[in-house]
Amino acid sequence: MPRLIENIDNPEDLRKLNISELTGLAGEIREEMLKVVSKTGGHLASSLGSVELAIAVHYAFNTPKDFILCDVGHQTYAHKMLTGRFKKFRSLRQLGGLSGFPNREESPEYDLFTTGHSSTSISAALGLVKSRELKGEANKIIAVIGDASLAGGMAFEALNHAGQAGKDIIIILNDNERSISKSVGALAKYLNRIISAPAYNKVRMDVERLVKRIPRFGFRAYRAARKLEEGLKNLLIPGMLFEEMGFRYFGPIDGHNVTQLVATFKNLMNLKEPILIHVITKKGRGYRFAEEDPASFHGTGPFDLDTGEKCEPEGASTFTEAFGEKIAELASRDPKIIAVTAAMLDGTGLNKFAKNFPDRFFDVGIAEEHAVSFAAGLARGGFRPVIAIYSTFLQRGYDQIIHDVCLQNLPVVFCLDRAGLVGEDGPTHHGIFDIAYLRNIPNLTFMAPATPAELGEMLEFAFGLNGPVAIRYPKGSAQDRAEKSAPIKMGKAQVVKKGKDLAMIALGSMVDIAFRTADTLSKKRIEATVVNARFIKPVDEELLAELCRDIKKIVTIEEGILDGGFGSSVLEFVERAGIRGVKARRIGLPDKFIEHGKRSELFSKYNLTPDAICDVIINEVMK
Amino acid sequence: MPRLIENIDNPEDLRKLNISELTGLAGEIREEMLKVVSKTGGHLASSLGSVELAIAVHYAFNTPKDFILCDVGHQTYAHKMLTGRFKKFRSLRQLGGLSGFPNREESPEYDLFTTGHSSTSISAALGLVKSRELKGEANKIIAVIGDASLAGGMAFEALNHAGQAGKDIIIILNDNERSISKSVGALAKYLNRIISAPAYNKVRMDVERLVKRIPRFGFRAYRAARKLEEGLKNLLIPGMLFEEMGFRYFGPIDGHNVTQLVATFKNLMNLKEPILIHVITKKGRGYRFAEEDPASFHGTGPFDLDTGEKCEPEGASTFTEAFGEKIAELASRDPKIIAVTAAMLDGTGLNKFAKNFPDRFFDVGIAEEHAVSFAAGLARGGFRPVIAIYSTFLQRGYDQIIHDVCLQNLPVVFCLDRAGLVGEDGPTHHGIFDIAYLRNIPNLTFMAPATPAELGEMLEFAFGLNGPVAIRYPKGSAQDRAEKSAPIKMGKAQVVKKGKDLAMIALGSMVDIAFRTADTLSKKRIEATVVNARFIKPVDEELLAELCRDIKKIVTIEEGILDGGFGSSVLEFVERAGIRGVKARRIGLPDKFIEHGKRSELFSKYNLTPDAICDVIINEVMK
Repeated sequence: MPRLIENIDNPEDLRKLNISELTGLAGEIREEMLKVVSKTGGHLASSLGSVELAIAVHYAFNTPKDFILCDVGHQTYAHKMLTGRFKKFRSLRQLGGLSGFPNREESPEYDLFTTGHSSTSISAALGLVKSRELKGEANKIIAVIGDASLAGGMAFEALNHAGQAGKDIIIILNDNERSISKSVGALAKYLNRIISAPAYNKVRMDVERLVKRIPRFGFRAYRAARKLEEGLKNLLIPGMLFEEMGFRYFGPIDGHNVTQLVATFKNLMNLKEPILIHVITKKGRGYRFAEEDPASFHGTGPFDLDTGEKCEPEGASTFTEAFGEKIAELASRDPKIIAVTAAMLDGTGLNKFAKNFPDRFFDVGIAEEHAVSFAAGLARGGFRPVIAIYSTFLQRGYDQIIHDVCLQNLPVVFCLDRAGLVGEDGPTHHGIFDIAYLRNIPNLTFMAPATPAELGEMLEFAFGLNGPVAIRYPKGSAQDRAEKSAPIKMGKAQVVKKGKDLAMIALGSMVDIAFRTADTLSKKRIEATVVNARFIKPVDEELLAELCRDIKKIVTIEEGILDGGFGSSVLEFVERAGIRGVKARRIGLPDKFIEHGKRSELFSKYNLTPDAICDVIINEVMK
Repeated sequence: MPRLIENIDNPEDLRKLNISELTGLAGEIREEMLKVVSKTGGHLASSLGSVELAIAVHYAFNTPKDFILCDVGHQTYAHKMLTGRFKKFRSLRQLGGLSGFPNREESPEYDLFTTGHSSTSISAALGLVKSRELKGEANKIIAVIGDASLAGGMAFEALNHAGQAGKDIIIILNDNERSISKSVGALAKYLNRIISAPAYNKVRMDVERLVKRIPRFGFRAYRAARKLEEGLKNLLIPGMLFEEMGFRYFGPIDGHNVTQLVATFKNLMNLKEPILIHVITKKGRGYRFAEEDPASFHGTGPFDLDTGEKCEPEGASTFTEAFGEKIAELASRDPKIIAVTAAMLDGTGLNKFAKNFPDRFFDVGIAEEHAVSFAAGLARGGFRPVIAIYSTFLQRGYDQIIHDVCLQNLPVVFCLDRAGLVGEDGPTHHGIFDIAYLRNIPNLTFMAPATPAELGEMLEFAFGLNGPVAIRYPKGSAQDRAEKSAPIKMGKAQVVKKGKDLAMIALGSMVDIAFRTADTLSKKRIEATVVNARFIKPVDEELLAELCRDIKKIVTIEEGILDGGFGSSVLEFVERAGIRGVKARRIGLPDKFIEHGKRSELFSKYNLTPDAICDVIINEVMK
């Protein structure tokens, strides 16, 4: 018998099903999801947790006429299967295949925004709501947002606006009590209180009975009681906080009971005010290993379906692991070191630190702005905070880096993991802007290590400075080719290979590539100097002057967008120093948003391979 | 008789006064404030509104051992006078004089952070709280934050963290119901409901009476009533929202009753939990004209004390005015144009638009992140939003510009007012980073007009494009020297003066300076070409190639930090095109945070004058 899912080309087909068939459909979707993701890797746990929700939303609402905006978007695998992408689902996260996130190019009708960062959906939805009002149209606009994303500041800004100005906007709070780790903060506690308090309903009934008897006690008391009743309705509805913000609150509702979900959505869809529907889901739902360890199955590589064991071979130590080990080691020697993360405990490698130094570890949730200024406060209090964060997410804290850290010249260490091409997560996650946006900030020292071991040395060096420091490093690992690494010195690069014909100044992850390029060039009798730049800011002016004088042909290589990047800082030096007669060539990423795919595939596509770099050097620089 | 204020060198002196003397002191402070600010200009209305609050805080708490963090900081004039800066107060906002904001260099003891942007104080305070805990110390840490700042997303992130993890942190909510304009959003409505609802207290009394009579009605009802009473305590305390977030709420309190303020602070200072004290103040308090028009006296130039009339002579039309006129004109022709501002109605010149098109105007409050993504939603809905914002504040929306606008390639127009040196507001407000942080974003078109008239043309051009556009322009005005302005064309600069010896490529505000430099050079028989760059991105490659070929000596001039800036984009072009033998020199702002002072004074100090530029050209370029 063919599966139901195979006959669903769009939500219209879904809505032809009988409501009793939806549970079976959910099972099919989960099965397919597990089959594919166990091979491709992906954001499994969140997507497993929101299968019924995705079905119910498309079943109850009239998509694509009605708009669904999924916050972040890594939980949209079921949504993709229901909106014409079931057959392509096996190409998930592969170069040229389906994106792991909502993607406008993939499905302009159903994926209204290409997303990947959190807490943006209510703002975007409200923009669409106001557009609809101005056009006099009448579709429903629904933002589906997780509890952890709702705690992000911009979601609050949007709630604040929508609660006052929003008409007919629906927010579905998909509450699984987690970001990647357990959700934190007062809002999380509050939501938990709602869920775990059936007492509320009990009190409510008692009070209703009481209130009915009150009229006997005279007019004055009656009037008070009326007001009281009105107040109680709010008090005892467990969503006071949202009600105070201008939303009508409904819930909590079991997010795995698809029938109840559909009924609720249908009941509420004709209300014309800002409403918030609180849905409880379980991350990893339906796959035991993911339910038991949702963090490890949040974003996972390929794994064995039967055992839940990850297939990834243990390779060389990654930058993330090196960071985790080193920061824990440094913290054991220096009680002033404090670690701050924004809901990225696992991803940034802070587990060991958190375990060993729970008092000095702070996960502030998805709140990058607060994370940065909170760290500034810690530094002002005499401590040495390190913020471990993905390059792409630090964009959220840009103003705070300038205003609260660098302007104060406070010793906060920013560790930018996933700097450069992040691979399968694609355009929303590539960390390719940080070089330009950080190197223009005064007081900041900015480094990039070539190897995980060097990251450790830079980290140690950073804590020896008395001002703000940023260190960027990529996903994965890198081979160590230097025979012996010289100690890190302020603003000093390291010459790792000498050659007379050409100088390649490589940044961080590109040092290994430069080495290999030099090997290839060497076969063509071009002897290249290879420099590990180490510092983006300040650049090694002394060495640069020497290379300009002695070699005259300079190539810079960076894993970042070229505009305003590291190579430009070398051009700036040449200009500043008034040096003439140098032939410089910058190699890095072009001025475009880069799609998803394996890091190695993207390197090939964007000419960051030894062969491609050799070609440029031979054809453009050595001529 | 000497004034009390003259004998106060620090808060210790203040605390020697009898509490009955404080009202008189407040009068003295207001008088001095008015005297000075009517001459120097400054942030008058907020500072007038928080005189009693500043006195009470320093009187009740043990500063500087206890820490006071004032959010934003433009309201701290009284704080400055009470902390050793009374005698220097007349130098307010002048080059080398007192800063108009908290400033660490000015007073490291009392100004813990140099601030100017909003919504950061709770984060910084919480960092200090955690530092204190780890050190086992015991001072009080108080964040004073306005109602408009509290609506900023990062303040919510900080509340969310503090409500769960904060011990012994005090937030004083200075509620004047305004940012610069009237506060907006659900939070503002909520606070207003608290203030304007004496009914609450009335109901409370009635209910208490009722509840006392309940025991007669049997045990079951009694139990319900007990729970009810408990619930009511929360319901009827008008601060439920904060209580739900983990704070104990106290208020509202009259912020101009210094005795009550002191008593409240002393009563509450020994509580060891997160507390929020809601204080009601009136912006402009004590100066009739400021009370009546607080927006115009938020940040004011010099004015006549007796009449409240502004002294500023009507000069040439400013960029801001030109924007305001043009956007209103364009909107009258195109119903798709929508304006979004983040609490900057007046400053950005949107008044006329707001008045003429109230349905298409959105002030989202101090919520730059939301503003950007909300605009993205409007654009996705088919409209043409323009966000008018100061360059420095757009830093808050950096991630959203990348993720929600440029990645989607949506036609949002960003108008960056106050780009470059903002003058008297100093380092937190200079808009000197935008060139580097914006020009590295794919899909963005980025312009800078040389004159207010050209801003109008660029705006019109921007709405003709189908993708994101940013336009940066400075405070004040600029002289129009071009005989006839050529129409704006994508990526095309304008040669405004021809000369064979040198090419000056000037950006925006620097075109006039370049003209004047060319005049001076001309006297020394150096004939310079002057180019109005118009586009930061894309640069005019054709013209640049021509200049490189024909003139070979190129000077770029920009009002922004040089690292990664406009000049670098010219260097990048020269490199990309493989052009040799060009002598390039970039002129702009150095890699440092720049102090406050008049724009003209800062231009002189940082060598952005015709004479200084002439010197560089003669000594370094023409040699």
